[in-house]
Amino acid sequence: MREVFLDYASTSPVDPDVQKAIMQSFTLYIGNPSSIHHYGRASREAVEANRDFVAQLLGSKHDEIVFTAGGTEANNLTIKGTAYMHKDKRKTKGPHIITSVIEHPAVLEPCRSLEDDGYKVAYLPVDKYGLIDLDTLEHTITKDTFLISIMTANNEIGTVEPIQEIGKIAHDHNILFHTDAVQGVGKLPIDVKKQHIDLLSLSAHKFYGPKGVGALYVRNGVQLQPLMHGGGHEKGLRSSTLNVPGIVGLGKAAELAAKRMPTDPERIQANRDHLIQRVLTIEESRLNGHPTKRLCNNAHFRFTGIEGESLLLGLDDKGIAASTGSACSSQKLQASHVLLAIGLTPVEAHGSLRFSLGRTTTRDDIDYVADELPGIVNRLRQMSPMWNR
Amino acid sequence: MREVFLDYASTSPVDPDVQKAIMQSFTLYIGNPSSIHHYGRASREAVEANRDFVAQLLGSKHDEIVFTAGGTEANNLTIKGTAYMHKDKRKTKGPHIITSVIEHPAVLEPCRSLEDDGYKVAYLPVDKYGLIDLDTLEHTITKDTFLISIMTANNEIGTVEPIQEIGKIAHDHNILFHTDAVQGVGKLPIDVKKQHIDLLSLSAHKFYGPKGVGALYVRNGVQLQPLMHGGGHEKGLRSSTLNVPGIVGLGKAAELAAKRMPTDPERIQANRDHLIQRVLTIEESRLNGHPTKRLCNNAHFRFTGIEGESLLLGLDDKGIAASTGSACSSQKLQASHVLLAIGLTPVEAHGSLRFSLGRTTTRDDIDYVADELPGIVNRLRQMSPMWNR
Repeated sequence: MREVFLDYASTSPVDPDVQKAIMQSFTLYIGNPSSIHHYGRASREAVEANRDFVAQLLGSKHDEIVFTAGGTEANNLTIKGTAYMHKDKRKTKGPHIITSVIEHPAVLEPCRSLEDDGYKVAYLPVDKYGLIDLDTLEHTITKDTFLISIMTANNEIGTVEPIQEIGKIAHDHNILFHTDAVQGVGKLPIDVKKQHIDLLSLSAHKFYGPKGVGALYVRNGVQLQPLMHGGGHEKGLRSSTLNVPGIVGLGKAAELAAKRMPTDPERIQANRDHLIQRVLTIEESRLNGHPTKRLCNNAHFRFTGIEGESLLLGLDDKGIAASTGSACSSQKLQASHVLLAIGLTPVEAHGSLRFSLGRTTTRDDIDYVADELPGIVNRLRQMSPMWNR
Repeated sequence: MREVFLDYASTSPVDPDVQKAIMQSFTLYIGNPSSIHHYGRASREAVEANRDFVAQLLGSKHDEIVFTAGGTEANNLTIKGTAYMHKDKRKTKGPHIITSVIEHPAVLEPCRSLEDDGYKVAYLPVDKYGLIDLDTLEHTITKDTFLISIMTANNEIGTVEPIQEIGKIAHDHNILFHTDAVQGVGKLPIDVKKQHIDLLSLSAHKFYGPKGVGALYVRNGVQLQPLMHGGGHEKGLRSSTLNVPGIVGLGKAAELAAKRMPTDPERIQANRDHLIQRVLTIEESRLNGHPTKRLCNNAHFRFTGIEGESLLLGLDDKGIAASTGSACSSQKLQASHVLLAIGLTPVEAHGSLRFSLGRTTTRDDIDYVADELPGIVNRLRQMSPMWNR
């Protein structure tokens, strides 16, 4: 049976060149990068060379990249790390974070944990496309706001937020700006200086690197409390023996992403548009998210009268991998907080499905999915009490 | 030139079978383990099968293993995670942790950060061998002690602590017992139930697994606050997309460690004893740590009249990798807190050097080191103002 993986927003296969780099690292860099003998020096040089590739992809300086275990850690380090710097302030003024209702749980949950600890958090609403409103943002700022955290692009519906404008507003008010760019890196051009970004989270496995490694860009001068205390690695911001194979994989993935940025997104978007066009010929189907301000690889639909999960399993039987909601919450039963936030009913939210395309997705893959999908939708609708035609 | 890596306590090369398992994982398990399609299920099954190997190595139940990014994270999760469960208690009674002065910074530094936050920490002294005293431990317990954290074996001098006895005391007083077993796993038999261990930290790269992955054993019933909030992975204790290649590597390393436990330590110890015997023929050389209660692979010496760092560089010129202090702090200039704690002067501490042996270390390797070392020591002594013979 044909196999078509259209769940790249959840995780991407590791690029063959990245695999090779990781494999070589096991023999080239066996030392601990903190050791001063030649094995240690070789590992340290590999770490720093790969830090460069990440910095170049973001337009940051070399020493503004802190390696983490992934996007969740980068987000937690940002949110708790900046909040704890304002711990003393808490007692008197009530420090304040602004984020949005459609952030990933790795931003929302640290914010909620801070609320339990006495911090104030404003969750900005979004419009029917998932876009935040800049005027609302500006009016939500208080004298106690120390952090604005808005994602570069939404992981479910793919909506791309106006990051540069948000960064400008943050800096005009002397507030730190963080963006969870886990879905954006490798798909959208990023320039942290031009976009007024102080902190940016990324995760290797979303752009053909390995799982278990990510990074946080921390603008020089930004103060953070570490999440993990210990040997003082990464300028004291992230103690732990450096994940050499992971960093080598992340660096190679960043190098490849930079090289392919001029060509990949356009090609992927053309395939994505072809998918959207074909899927929307299905009766009572709709596109979720913004028609144009969306990630090149994201196609998110809702279908009246069926459950996304049944559809996902029907597609899986045909060798096609898609997703309902985010992978993180795909084993939970609640309706997606993102889909509810853009105004969908719980029934509409449960009838939604995400396809996310990748570097190696072909037009034939898309046509296979588009050929199989109507039959599955129709069969499910015939069995559905919610479908009365 | 011959290459002899004798810095296994700092990090170990990745076993070829582990490398192979990781490499295969990149094609076999491309899905996100949280996804419900067949790619996700394959990854999830791999994660759980490898969780089993870790559980088996420790004598724990399958669902008592939480994957982390390494030992530092496991230690931080334990110390902060148990402390935050006693947060409310703090206001009234002053919750209390007992640890030792010779713990790794990944235990000491989280403890210090808690002290800044109003918690009380007792740092037990050690004798000249690095052993804690059980009577002192028992007398240090207060009604507010909620955690005892004592390492299984010291990372610098290799001294093995009486873990089972400490666990018994902790449980007799209804106190949680955590052990940082990063150096012990794969070298000492561990049975968390028999040894009364509630929480145990391990790191894959210390026993032939990859860097960037570790685990925390958390006895069922022990309550922890997570360090990282997000998608709710690992029963909510550690949100983040699971590090599939890392977990596959850790699992394979655990499987191999269990298989080799009956033979490896004895053989490594014989080589280690041969090294000790030969090195101690050097004038004014001493063994640091306990003569018998020490890790099978650890040989830690001091040499009058020279600096360990110069010795390390002299050995490096001969292709031999050793270490002064721990790798984490090897780029710092302070004398080792462990060596000062066992009563060495700062000068003696700076004149110390650790050799740590591995699975593939041969008798020839040892003889090469033992042949080269006296010449290097003598040359350094001739240049040293501290050596007047």
